[in-house]
Amino acid sequence: MSDTSAILPIETPLNAVGATYDLDQPLELDGGQVLHGVRIAYETYGTLNEARDNAILVCHATTGDQHLATPHPITGKPGWWSRMVGPGLPIDTDRFYVICPNVLGSCMGTTGPGSLAPDGLPYGPRFPVITIRDMVRAHVLLLKALGVENLYAVIGGSMGGMQALSLSVHWPDLARRVLVLASTAAMPVQNIAFQELGRQAIMADPEWQGGAYHGTGKSPDAGLAVARMAAHITYLSEATLSEKFGRRLQNGQAKSFGFGADFQVESYLRYQGESFTGRFDANSYLYITKAMSYFDLAEGHGEDDHPGRLAEAFKGVHSRFCLVSFDTDWLYPTSESRTIAHALNAAGAPVSFMELSAPFGHDSFLLDVPALDRVIEGFLLR
Amino acid sequence: MSDTSAILPIETPLNAVGATYDLDQPLELDGGQVLHGVRIAYETYGTLNEARDNAILVCHATTGDQHLATPHPITGKPGWWSRMVGPGLPIDTDRFYVICPNVLGSCMGTTGPGSLAPDGLPYGPRFPVITIRDMVRAHVLLLKALGVENLYAVIGGSMGGMQALSLSVHWPDLARRVLVLASTAAMPVQNIAFQELGRQAIMADPEWQGGAYHGTGKSPDAGLAVARMAAHITYLSEATLSEKFGRRLQNGQAKSFGFGADFQVESYLRYQGESFTGRFDANSYLYITKAMSYFDLAEGHGEDDHPGRLAEAFKGVHSRFCLVSFDTDWLYPTSESRTIAHALNAAGAPVSFMELSAPFGHDSFLLDVPALDRVIEGFLLR
Repeated sequence: MSDTSAILPIETPLNAVGATYDLDQPLELDGGQVLHGVRIAYETYGTLNEARDNAILVCHATTGDQHLATPHPITGKPGWWSRMVGPGLPIDTDRFYVICPNVLGSCMGTTGPGSLAPDGLPYGPRFPVITIRDMVRAHVLLLKALGVENLYAVIGGSMGGMQALSLSVHWPDLARRVLVLASTAAMPVQNIAFQELGRQAIMADPEWQGGAYHGTGKSPDAGLAVARMAAHITYLSEATLSEKFGRRLQNGQAKSFGFGADFQVESYLRYQGESFTGRFDANSYLYITKAMSYFDLAEGHGEDDHPGRLAEAFKGVHSRFCLVSFDTDWLYPTSESRTIAHALNAAGAPVSFMELSAPFGHDSFLLDVPALDRVIEGFLLR
Repeated sequence: MSDTSAILPIETPLNAVGATYDLDQPLELDGGQVLHGVRIAYETYGTLNEARDNAILVCHATTGDQHLATPHPITGKPGWWSRMVGPGLPIDTDRFYVICPNVLGSCMGTTGPGSLAPDGLPYGPRFPVITIRDMVRAHVLLLKALGVENLYAVIGGSMGGMQALSLSVHWPDLARRVLVLASTAAMPVQNIAFQELGRQAIMADPEWQGGAYHGTGKSPDAGLAVARMAAHITYLSEATLSEKFGRRLQNGQAKSFGFGADFQVESYLRYQGESFTGRFDANSYLYITKAMSYFDLAEGHGEDDHPGRLAEAFKGVHSRFCLVSFDTDWLYPTSESRTIAHALNAAGAPVSFMELSAPFGHDSFLLDVPALDRVIEGFLLR
């Protein structure tokens, strides 16, 4: 683990895997609290050029991480966007310097509720509730430490798209291009409902212990698994579920007439839930989903329900935008991207927007969709 | 509580509220087990005419009950279909003799996992896994005891529609008309996934105690509340959620920056979950949703994935059918009803099928949709 806090920007390590940076200042949060001693875990790929104008910030999704194109340290699986980021790939590391930080509140090395507070004890429920903008605030300080004063592009899907949008509005001079995939400018109410369901499942687990389970040797795995199952269903399309599992039974044609997993989809969901608990922290799940539920880019810009207020939020942006939605994504449907496109148009910002056809539901932005590769490659061309 | 087991059919009580009937024979189940001493709780409205040809069986949905048009004994709320069933209403009790039994496996008086087994102890997890056809099997025995040899119609929405379809196929001479609302001939995989999520939430609750909690003074309320929240989200449309709650906060404009219920939709879901535990049994929820997940009317009729097999299942039906779907119902979408209509057509059975426009999602069949009133009234006219 290298610590860049002692490294001058220009000496930024290349292809830094497993790097961390300790903020040299307290982090002031939207909720009014201040976090001291924040550490950010991140990875970089490629080289920052002399003009320092080839940096791309990639923002990860809810339960994602900084392991963009290197194997996940726990699961051993390839980095979550290794099909997109690398030499000669759409986000070409021969050309770009790509930075991916783990978000504030997470559990993959960046400070979160499972980290030790300055008093030496885990934060647990003492960790402050954060916002998407707070996550970006930490990213911006990391960029500065890495010698990156402006970004060729900021890119993100789902919650990563929220970060990209927040950056474009609140740090309008930072990114020249903003690429937002399968995301929204304000969390839709149905998603708030599903996220609340997940949080309730975690908080209903007695092992949650009011959030103070870190260091007790116990954790609300059962509740977290249920939360993950709920989220996982929403990430997939009905078409994917039908094709992948249909009503096929686990053991040939025999129903068990019991409460074991009869259907393949039941077994799959149980596996998804259980395996998730081995790589993610329940409190991080609470804090990150809360930040997403809170996300409303138009907040503070005029009256509620006033259709023009999102355009107001975009009034000062200086970036070019590219928005992508997927036709089978029912969690962040095309209408959400269209709302953003309309508001950007109204604010006079350059934007291209397209709905891609892909069968994988919300997960499409992570999977093999060649049309997406072409969109990203084209948007980054010049 | 009157017990009709001692009453001759022709002396059937009129408007029997809170009636029960104890089967005078063991109930053989699809799973191969046999239930002894089954009690069925039911209500009736109107009068069986001398020709005994005006009886309508109404089948309730997952967590519904026999309190069709009388107040619920626990919540005090009006019967769940009191807008549809009564004198002069679409299901006109001046004309029809309407019977609504509580399904096998439930907890409102009919034998279920919370009932006492013949050994005097609660069934709990010893209760056998049942099917939709098992529920109908019990209904048919009740009908016989009530002197009803054939039905003017069988009517049901959601799980009630599954019962109506099962009755039409497995007791083809019983019902002259079959009215199926917002239902399916085979539980779609996404619904199996959501139901499995709910079951996992219940079984993850330590108070579930392997299902043997009846009589312990404890029950898996937290898990059941989470299961209910999940189901409730799927019953509503995005439009209903947006209109009813949107992103409106509980306390004006102030976010709590905590994990209380910030948004109105969060508070609403918590209330739905918590209040449900006061009126429903967690094990009943497990058994009934399992029966629904198992439901596949085409089972046993030819190969899997063979498009003609549902038509095979309908080959021997003798009823007229009416199918209704709702355009905002994403849990049992119109495509499910269309599949049934096509199969009935292929089997040469008379069927009318329509998709109604209503904003309430899956719950539309329970709510104020005047077009539905007209469909039901018309279908029952002659």
